[in-house]
Amino acid sequence: MNSPIMLEIKIGGNSIIYPQDLSKLLNKIAKILPAEGNEPIIINGRLPVWVFSALTYWFYHRPWIATYEPREIKGVVVGSRIADVSIGDLIEIKEIKKIYVEYP
Amino acid sequence: MNSPIMLEIKIGGNSIIYPQDLSKLLNKIAKILPAEGNEPIIINGRLPVWVFSALTYWFYHRPWIATYEPREIKGVVVGSRIADVSIGDLIEIKEIKKIYVEYP
Repeated sequence: MNSPIMLEIKIGGNSIIYPQDLSKLLNKIAKILPAEGNEPIIINGRLPVWVFSALTYWFYHRPWIATYEPREIKGVVVGSRIADVSIGDLIEIKEIKKIYVEYP
Repeated sequence: MNSPIMLEIKIGGNSIIYPQDLSKLLNKIAKILPAEGNEPIIINGRLPVWVFSALTYWFYHRPWIATYEPREIKGVVVGSRIADVSIGDLIEIKEIKKIYVEYP
């Protein structure tokens, strides 16, 4: 397992994204960060719940997936296939590698 | 594929759930609604994004998964393994079967 990556998504324009944008957003992310790979993913952004859920589904085969929780200033693990990382675990995000995606 | 089920989760007490509650919530849901099955799932509730994401991960093998979007009064499909249902599709929730889970 490699070091985790925090995926920071920014919705441009009026900050609104619609359900019909979802597959285009995923296509854009896919060019930057593949669905499968050895780095766990922490999802971050001011996004509707269905974008977080769609990205969780998208990155399902990663070692683990977390969503960033501003109230904890940490990631919360939402699914894991790694023995030493469990659902609900908090992930420190200091010094973490970040990848930025802006949509559209 | 069977008819979809809307899973409505209510957090009791002060309406707050913490990351360390996540596996207990999933254990409670698992007794009522198995992770795998032929009914697609629409997730609903006043919940942190990491609960929606954890449930999306949990129900990954279902035919499709949606999250309820109050602004659309519909479900938004976040992942599908069914040819005629695509990510971003809106799902009517009238006359849908509902299953309620209260935590704790």
